[in-house]
Amino acid sequence: MKVDGKHTRPIWLDPESRDVNVIDQRALPHELVVLEMQTVDDVIFAIKEMVVRGAPLIGITGAYGVYLALKNAPDGKADAGYIQSECERIRSARPTAVNLAWAVDRVLQKLEILTDQDDLLEAARIEAGAIAEEEADNCRQIGLHGLRLVEAASRRKAGETVNILTHCNAGWLATIEYGTATAPIYVAHEEGLKVHVWVDETRPLNQGARLTAWELGKAGIPHTVITDNAGGHLMQHGLVDLVIVGTDRTTHTGDVANKIGTYLKALAAKDNQIPFYVALPSSTFDWQLRDGVREIPIEERDPDEIRYVQGRGDDGIRSVLLSPQDSPAGNYAFDVTPARLVSAFITERGVCQASEEAIRGLFPEKTRRT
Amino acid sequence: MKVDGKHTRPIWLDPESRDVNVIDQRALPHELVVLEMQTVDDVIFAIKEMVVRGAPLIGITGAYGVYLALKNAPDGKADAGYIQSECERIRSARPTAVNLAWAVDRVLQKLEILTDQDDLLEAARIEAGAIAEEEADNCRQIGLHGLRLVEAASRRKAGETVNILTHCNAGWLATIEYGTATAPIYVAHEEGLKVHVWVDETRPLNQGARLTAWELGKAGIPHTVITDNAGGHLMQHGLVDLVIVGTDRTTHTGDVANKIGTYLKALAAKDNQIPFYVALPSSTFDWQLRDGVREIPIEERDPDEIRYVQGRGDDGIRSVLLSPQDSPAGNYAFDVTPARLVSAFITERGVCQASEEAIRGLFPEKTRRT
Repeated sequence: MKVDGKHTRPIWLDPESRDVNVIDQRALPHELVVLEMQTVDDVIFAIKEMVVRGAPLIGITGAYGVYLALKNAPDGKADAGYIQSECERIRSARPTAVNLAWAVDRVLQKLEILTDQDDLLEAARIEAGAIAEEEADNCRQIGLHGLRLVEAASRRKAGETVNILTHCNAGWLATIEYGTATAPIYVAHEEGLKVHVWVDETRPLNQGARLTAWELGKAGIPHTVITDNAGGHLMQHGLVDLVIVGTDRTTHTGDVANKIGTYLKALAAKDNQIPFYVALPSSTFDWQLRDGVREIPIEERDPDEIRYVQGRGDDGIRSVLLSPQDSPAGNYAFDVTPARLVSAFITERGVCQASEEAIRGLFPEKTRRT
Repeated sequence: MKVDGKHTRPIWLDPESRDVNVIDQRALPHELVVLEMQTVDDVIFAIKEMVVRGAPLIGITGAYGVYLALKNAPDGKADAGYIQSECERIRSARPTAVNLAWAVDRVLQKLEILTDQDDLLEAARIEAGAIAEEEADNCRQIGLHGLRLVEAASRRKAGETVNILTHCNAGWLATIEYGTATAPIYVAHEEGLKVHVWVDETRPLNQGARLTAWELGKAGIPHTVITDNAGGHLMQHGLVDLVIVGTDRTTHTGDVANKIGTYLKALAAKDNQIPFYVALPSSTFDWQLRDGVREIPIEERDPDEIRYVQGRGDDGIRSVLLSPQDSPAGNYAFDVTPARLVSAFITERGVCQASEEAIRGLFPEKTRRT
C-alpha cells in the first residue's frame, strides 16, 4: 500500500543483501523504522516481540525464517535434523497463530526432495515469496467479496456514510496488502463509497490506536479512535452499521480466536442486531480443532505490557507506569468468539456463514477423505 | 479507610481554615496529593477535572460547594438569586451523575427558611457533613448486604477463593468509606473470606488500574489488574464468580449508567451465567427517567483523554501520545446497561431485583402519591 506516495509492504527481501527486512511495528505511528533480519533468532525475536504481528504476516515471516535457517546452516550444510529443529523453534514463537505452523510446514514440504544446499535455499526463498504473493492476492479477494457487504449497508442508508467498527489491526501491516478486516474498507473507499471507521484502541498494545489509525490516516479514510470500552454504547445508539475483525485462528466449526476483547464486541453486535463479520484468508482456518473456546491455546504475555504504556513523550518514545508498582497484572492476548455470534466469514473465495457445513462447502478440498 | 495506618477519607473539612480538602485522585497511585478547595470555582474544577469522581463523592463535593458559595458570598450576603445561580453552576459540572443535583438540592432545602448569613453557612456545612456521614453509613450497609452474596459464592466453591470482577473505581475513593462495589469485598475480607479481585484498568482514565488497585493493595486484598478487553475471556473459562460494579445513575426501572464498558461486561456475564450485581446507595436512583439508554445524558469528554495516557515515567508523572497526531478520537464517558442484564441491586436497604416493582418495593416512600 502507499505510504507518503511510496509503495510499501511490511516485509520484503532485500535485493542486494538477501536479508529479510521488516517494518518495526513497535515504533509506529511515531516513527517508520526498518529492521533487518539475518538469522532465525532475529525472526523469533521479531515474532515474539511483535516487531511483526497479525496472522498472515507472522506466517510469511516464519516462512522467511526457514529461508534464513538454511542461509545460516552450520558449515553451509543443512541436514534434516537441523532444519526440523530450527523450524520447531520458529513454530513455537507464538502459539495462537495457526498461520505460523502452516507457512513453515508449507516451505518444509518444498524442501523434502532436495539435498543440494543452493537448491534448498532457493526453494525456501521462492516458496516464502509465493506465500507472500498469495496472501496479498487473498486480501484483495477478501476486499472484493467484502465490498458487497459494505455496498449493501450503504444502500440501506441511501448512500449515507457507513460506520464500520474494527478491533486491533487486521490491516495491510498485519498481512501484505489491503489487510483482512480492512480490505473491504480500502476497496469500498477506492470505489467511492462513504465509509467511516471506529478504531478500537486495543489495549494492551494499542494496535488499533497505533497501527490501524496510522494506516487509515495514510489512506485518507475518515476514522475515529475510541477506547475498547466504547463499542457497546455506539452500537446501542445506532452509530455502528457493521463490525469487521480479523482472526489469528478460526476453527473449521467457526469459532474465532482474535485479539482479546473481540468476544465482547461480538456480544454487543448480537445484542443490537448489527452484523459481525470476520475476514480471513483460508490459511487462518484450523481444520483440526472443533471447540475454539476449549481447544485454542491462548497465549499469556508479559504483565508489564499492561502495567506500562508506551507512547511519544516530549523527548521520544517513552514508557509510563499506570498501576501501583506492587499490583500484579494478567495479560491474556486473545479470546475466542463462538461461531453463534459471527454473522459471516469473508474469505478469498467468498462470503459464508459461520458453520462447519458452510466453511467446508467453500473449501471442499479440506474435507478429509476417510 | 486506613492508608498506611492512618484513617483517611477522600474529602474532609479542615477544622482550622474551614476550607474543604480533597485527595487529588489524578495523582494516584503514584503520589498522595491533597488539594484545598476555597471557592465554587475550585469545586467545579475538582469535579470537571476529576480531582474527585464517583457518584456519591461528587454529590458530597457538590454539597460542600454550596457551603463554599455561601462562605464566598459577595459582601458577605448571599441572596436567593446568588445562591440559585451558584448552585446551577455546580449542578452542571457533570451531567451524568444524578447525585450531584440531588445533594445540591438537599442542601438548598435546608437553607429555605433561613436568612441570617451565619445561619445559612452553618446549615450548609452541617447538611453537607450529614450527607457525607449518611453516604458512609450507606456504604457500610451495602457491604453488609453484599456480604451475603459473596458468602453464597464462597459456599458454592467450598471455601475456595471467590473471584470478583469490577470495572472502574466504585471504592471508598469514590464515596467516603468502603465504597459501593468494593464494600462487599472489604467486608468479606474483614470477615475472613478468601476473595480475589479482577480489576478492569478502565480506559481512558484508568480508574481501575490507578485507584481500585491502589485501594485494594492498601487493604491487603489480592487483586490482578487486567485490560478492559479481558473480562469476557476470564468468564468463559470459569475464572469469574461474580461481577460487582457501581453506577453514576440508575433509573427506577433498573437501567444502569456507569463507566463506559460496563455494558460489555454485563453482556459477557449474561452469556456465561455469572451474576452481575450493581451496588449503589439510594441517592443514585433517578426516580424520574424510565428508559436509561434513551434518556440518560452521556457526557462526551476531551478526546485527548484517549489520545494521551498519563503515568509515572523516569522523572515524574508524564503524558505520552498513543495514536497518530492527526487521528481524531471520541471520548464517551458512560454507557447504559439495560435492567435485563442486571442480576440484582445491592443497596443500603438490602438486595433487590432489577425491576421497577422491586426497586419501589425497597423504597416505597419514593412512589409518588398522585
